[in-house]
Amino acid sequence: MIGLFDSGIGGLTVVRELLRQAPDASFVYLGDTARTPYGNKSPETVIRYALEDAEFLLKHGATSIVIACNSASAVATEALRRAHLSIPIFEVITPAVEAVCRLNVGRVGVIGTRATIASRAYESRLRERGIEVIAKACPLFVPLVEEGWLTDVETKRIVKHYLSSIRQAQVDAMILGCTHYPLLSEIIQRFMGKQVRLIDSGAMVVGELLRHVSQDGARSQRFFLTDLSARSEEIAAQWLARPVHFEKADI
Amino acid sequence: MIGLFDSGIGGLTVVRELLRQAPDASFVYLGDTARTPYGNKSPETVIRYALEDAEFLLKHGATSIVIACNSASAVATEALRRAHLSIPIFEVITPAVEAVCRLNVGRVGVIGTRATIASRAYESRLRERGIEVIAKACPLFVPLVEEGWLTDVETKRIVKHYLSSIRQAQVDAMILGCTHYPLLSEIIQRFMGKQVRLIDSGAMVVGELLRHVSQDGARSQRFFLTDLSARSEEIAAQWLARPVHFEKADI
Repeated sequence: MIGLFDSGIGGLTVVRELLRQAPDASFVYLGDTARTPYGNKSPETVIRYALEDAEFLLKHGATSIVIACNSASAVATEALRRAHLSIPIFEVITPAVEAVCRLNVGRVGVIGTRATIASRAYESRLRERGIEVIAKACPLFVPLVEEGWLTDVETKRIVKHYLSSIRQAQVDAMILGCTHYPLLSEIIQRFMGKQVRLIDSGAMVVGELLRHVSQDGARSQRFFLTDLSARSEEIAAQWLARPVHFEKADI
Repeated sequence: MIGLFDSGIGGLTVVRELLRQAPDASFVYLGDTARTPYGNKSPETVIRYALEDAEFLLKHGATSIVIACNSASAVATEALRRAHLSIPIFEVITPAVEAVCRLNVGRVGVIGTRATIASRAYESRLRERGIEVIAKACPLFVPLVEEGWLTDVETKRIVKHYLSSIRQAQVDAMILGCTHYPLLSEIIQRFMGKQVRLIDSGAMVVGELLRHVSQDGARSQRFFLTDLSARSEEIAAQWLARPVHFEKADI
């Protein structure tokens, strides 16, 4: 059974991709909506939360863990692997970096939360591979997505505000380094121009996951949140294009 | 000693007003930055956090509590009073409602987080007093303030988006029902027109507080956060126009 966690509902974009590639996958999802977001908190706090999230998933039958959150992938992967040596732990950074390397491009944009960008997790790995990086934290993208302003004129202006420097640098590709951002991909693609390849970090990890994890037992798909709200069910149903029932997780 | 808590650093606008009216006041401030924001979380979760915050302040010598957060004031005041019967507990809703009533006006706007507006805490009290209310949740205002976009063109557009219906209703006054919002008061005032009186809920509670609480002992002013970051000290220093040293609170 695959366990996935995110700071909130953003990681459902990873579940969406998982269901697209493997509709019968068994998984348990945990969104830490009571403490969301992680992206503007310190590494120390994000590590503590990630350890608790993984603990919860393991207690609920997970035999592998997907960190479906860039901020946690960037700062907590090492601590999670140290704490759970025998459990395969997948993070979203490496598969996205590999996808960029396969494109054989010279200059790449990376966008993410404050925590992800400050960690330089993408930047340092891409530079090691000889790729030039323009990185930019876009802290307002997550609240815009959660407000449901996916195509609004205000969102377009904020996209322009954050991404102008990356567009000016004429990058060949750009990593959407936050699981919320695919929901803005249409508006981002239009601003960046269609010649720029957008890499969805959440989608990339699913390929990696399915290559390594075999499915066993009867199909079971459970969704947990640490804070329940009608709004979360509404947004989740819209993103996944099916009804989603959330159970309460007490962490 | 006065204890004040907020979901994060927004409550520092209340501290700013306290220091303006009583520069030598002794207080201990707690910002729950590790779990911020509260305004998009359920009443159940906000109540749990508020009880823990108050507990922390009492352990650090507080003899009265100010809920320097509208979301917590709206949903957790009753639970806090029940848990601490002998401690004076001040919330930010009632003083703002009283301030509006003193203005003797007929129609009032109320803006706040999703949690505050959904609670109808302002709305029901103002309606009881015969005042017509137009309420609106403005979930993007807090992230905009925390991003420091206090006068940007993007912020102006979002102000217009949220507040157009209240402006069209030709209100006489508007309650800034979130401790972050005073930082947007210039841009909000300009959009609403100078004939609209803006009521800062955080400032109103300070008058109420100082009427009831007498200062004792040597001056002590401590600031705690549950998640520390250089950015918080920077923003706090800017808001309070003095350096602020934050200590780590483990809750």
